Amino acid sequence: MHVKHMNNKYKNMKKESGGVVYVSHRESFCYGHRMHSKYFSKEDNKKIFGKCNEINGHGHNCILEVTLRGNVNNKSGMITKDVKELKKAIKDVIVNEWDHKNLNLDTSIFRDLNPTVENMVVAIWNLLQKRIKDGRLYEVKLHETDKISAYYRGK
Amino acid sequence: MHVKHMNNKYKNMKKESGGVVYVSHRESFCYGHRMHSKYFSKEDNKKIFGKCNEINGHGHNCILEVTLRGNVNNKSGMITKDVKELKKAIKDVIVNEWDHKNLNLDTSIFRDLNPTVENMVVAIWNLLQKRIKDGRLYEVKLHETDKISAYYRGK
Amino acid sequence: MHVKHMNNKYKNMKKESGGVVYVSHRESFCYGHRMHSKYFSKEDNKKIFGKCNEINGHGHNCILEVTLRGNVNNKSGMITKDVKELKKAIKDVIVNEWDHKNLNLDTSIFRDLNPTVENMVVAIWNLLQKRIKDGRLYEVKLHETDKISAYYRGK
Amino acid sequence: MHVKHMNNKYKNMKKESGGVVYVSHRESFCYGHRMHSKYFSKEDNKKIFGKCNEINGHGHNCILEVTLRGNVNNKSGMITKDVKELKKAIKDVIVNEWDHKNLNLDTSIFRDLNPTVENMVVAIWNLLQKRIKDGRLYEVKLHETDKISAYYRGK
Amino acid sequence: MHVKHMNNKYKNMKKESGGVVYVSHRESFCYGHRMHSKYFSKEDNKKIFGKCNEINGHGHNCILEVTLRGNVNNKSGMITKDVKELKKAIKDVIVNEWDHKNLNLDTSIFRDLNPTVENMVVAIWNLLQKRIKDGRLYEVKLHETDKISAYYRGK
Amino acid sequence: MHVKHMNNKYKNMKKESGGVVYVSHRESFCYGHRMHSKYFSKEDNKKIFGKCNEINGHGHNCILEVTLRGNVNNKSGMITKDVKELKKAIKDVIVNEWDHKNLNLDTSIFRDLNPTVENMVVAIWNLLQKRIKDGRLYEVKLHETDKISAYYRGK
Repeated sequence: MHVKHMNNKYKNMKKESGGVVYVSHRESFCYGHRMHSKYFSKEDNKKIFGKCNEINGHGHNCILEVTLRGNVNNKSGMITKDVKELKKAIKDVIVNEWDHKNLNLDTSIFRDLNPTVENMVVAIWNLLQKRIKDGRLYEVKLHETDKISAYYRGK
Repeated sequence: MHVKHMNNKYKNMKKESGGVVYVSHRESFCYGHRMHSKYFSKEDNKKIFGKCNEINGHGHNCILEVTLRGNVNNKSGMITKDVKELKKAIKDVIVNEWDHKNLNLDTSIFRDLNPTVENMVVAIWNLLQKRIKDGRLYEVKLHETDKISAYYRGK
Repeated sequence: MHVKHMNNKYKNMKKESGGVVYVSHRESFCYGHRMHSKYFSKEDNKKIFGKCNEINGHGHNCILEVTLRGNVNNKSGMITKDVKELKKAIKDVIVNEWDHKNLNLDTSIFRDLNPTVENMVVAIWNLLQKRIKDGRLYEVKLHETDKISAYYRGK
Repeated sequence: MHVKHMNNKYKNMKKESGGVVYVSHRESFCYGHRMHSKYFSKEDNKKIFGKCNEINGHGHNCILEVTLRGNVNNKSGMITKDVKELKKAIKDVIVNEWDHKNLNLDTSIFRDLNPTVENMVVAIWNLLQKRIKDGRLYEVKLHETDKISAYYRGK
Repeated sequence: MHVKHMNNKYKNMKKESGGVVYVSHRESFCYGHRMHSKYFSKEDNKKIFGKCNEINGHGHNCILEVTLRGNVNNKSGMITKDVKELKKAIKDVIVNEWDHKNLNLDTSIFRDLNPTVENMVVAIWNLLQKRIKDGRLYEVKLHETDKISAYYRGK
Repeated sequence: MHVKHMNNKYKNMKKESGGVVYVSHRESFCYGHRMHSKYFSKEDNKKIFGKCNEINGHGHNCILEVTLRGNVNNKSGMITKDVKELKKAIKDVIVNEWDHKNLNLDTSIFRDLNPTVENMVVAIWNLLQKRIKDGRLYEVKLHETDKISAYYRGK
């Protein structure tokens, strides 16, 4: 459970130092995609997703914002040992795979999964989770356009 | 109580699927208003609200950001059955009523209520709440200017 | 010639009133596209356009900024008789045709023409020119991403 | 004539130093206004200006961008002797008069003049012109919203 | 503990009125700094902080966003008695001390403490805490660049 | 002379194709600097530059916007043979030399020259000019903060 889980995190963090700080990094990339669910008929896909279901797809320049949480280390003054590690993780598992690609056609994740902004933030969380050790990953947010964004904080 | 309420929400949501995702939609509109409280004397209104109390009012182009929360539906990949419904709700109850209006003079809500950014987010929450069913409304945020914003997450 | 042409415009405009004012309107839309020129070999396309040449395309949410130029009308205080006319023109000839489409596959213009940001601003100019009468169209600018933009002011 | 005038400016400037540089300063303020022309009937005002003609007005947080032009002074490295002078001029003649005011009702300029974005940039130019000596004022731009802006470069 | 603490806050707030609203104010200032920890060797500082460790420093124009939390007062319609008080506090303890300064060399706080974005938000929180009475301070966020930000909500 | 020079450019360009298009690329970097002129006394430096003259300097995250101008090539649909060339030029001569540096202390150009935004755009122009062949460089613009920017278009 999210809030309980947050409580446990905080308990452990409190032992280390005086304060929990959240740090966010932003990267931008662009991709093509098409809203289409294999569970729906052609007509229902059109009805539900409207112009986002256009057969040849469209695309976005999104902003990905990843937030880590941790106690500030007394020596470095940072919450992570190596901030380059996070940047490298984002580059390796997301940007290199999704930038300038068509998500439906070029990625294995979205071959069967509708590349909605919701599914995208969950997928990014799961991919980054394997690289960001010891529960420091706090939030994955994706700004699809200036009008639409989504965030996920794990199960 | 906010956090308790959040816990209950999460419990129910957890039964449905793997993750709770938050999705935000932004709309912009512009309005005129004047800071003035009927509970204060003319002098106190001037003292407390300063130039915001100028008798003929001023205005802003605000950005309204409404965040919904829900489990991702396995079939649609979205947290809401119909995203158009949210857009329609925002348009019907807020934009059509407040856009290009003077809030103090043209709306019934703010005839007696000071149209502060705080009162605006609470009013928007209450208006949207009636349209966004089943506890999915999570946050109403209003960016009055680049410098001032407020948000409300319900009682 | 551009500057000469500008001079002539200004001469005529000066007769009408005291000052030439430029007014810009912005619209945003999103599209998919792929950099690919029919004049180049497969290898050269890859070499010149890099990841922008990926076979299944990518996309952007662009901002289109159209600037009109004219003398301020003494009665209306505006440079155009009807600003709705411009908005309608942008909607009719650009947004309705290109929004949520794949430019290479879904539009006749870019079936044979590489949909670079350069070709896009020239195409938008030519399409709007037919609708914006009497030389008032001054500039078409397209912000493809936060990092790349292009503008065109006609021949 | 604008371009000719520009040429003369440049000739004089060239004598002084190696290059003409343009420097822009931005200030933001907010105001109420209502589109309404005394030359039109009530019905025509409604027809032409639509919701912008609502009787009690609306408002905007605008961004004012003033661009000066000049040769870089070899000693100071700046185009103006005192940048504070420009800031003070903008504050004195615009911000102090228009900020948090209703332009139609609270300013003498717009009592009879429709406060369109076009009329606003011309008025700002004329007001600043008296304070910015020796032809250094190059452009006055007003971003009324994220979607609409206008600029004026003098007669 | 953070969440527990939040619960207690909410309980007290609930007695007063119908809803807890969060209001954020943004200020911008610029500073010079250099990433350098006295606990690390010269080589380790270089290795950990890279170009941010360059001996003569660099700088940023940051945006400081301070969020207060409180019940909306029924009479004023605001969560704080005097919003000017907050602005004055930010100006007195942060902007006047840090703006256009080199944090490592010109401030006593960062003479021995590495001026990371994490240490900056904690320091700002502690400085503002003394001025913002009765637990209304909720969050201090600093946008160091468009790509990096950090926030702190107290112990 | 600027406008004449522009005319000549246009004449040559017109022979090649149908239209001259301007393309802008943006890069961001951050630096430290201090306003100080060797031609002024200590007191005059303080008086003229105010807090920007603070002895230990401050800094900014600037946005550099370089605009090229050219005829659209019929085959590539671009105005430059290789857009990577421009990006590489900006990186080589500006970003690699100035990013995360103190301009006054770490660069040879600004050891004797006051690093004002005016001197910076002229210096960037001169550095890029050597790399961008055949008169395609049109404008160098630097956004020092959200409030101050400068641009230069050559002699």
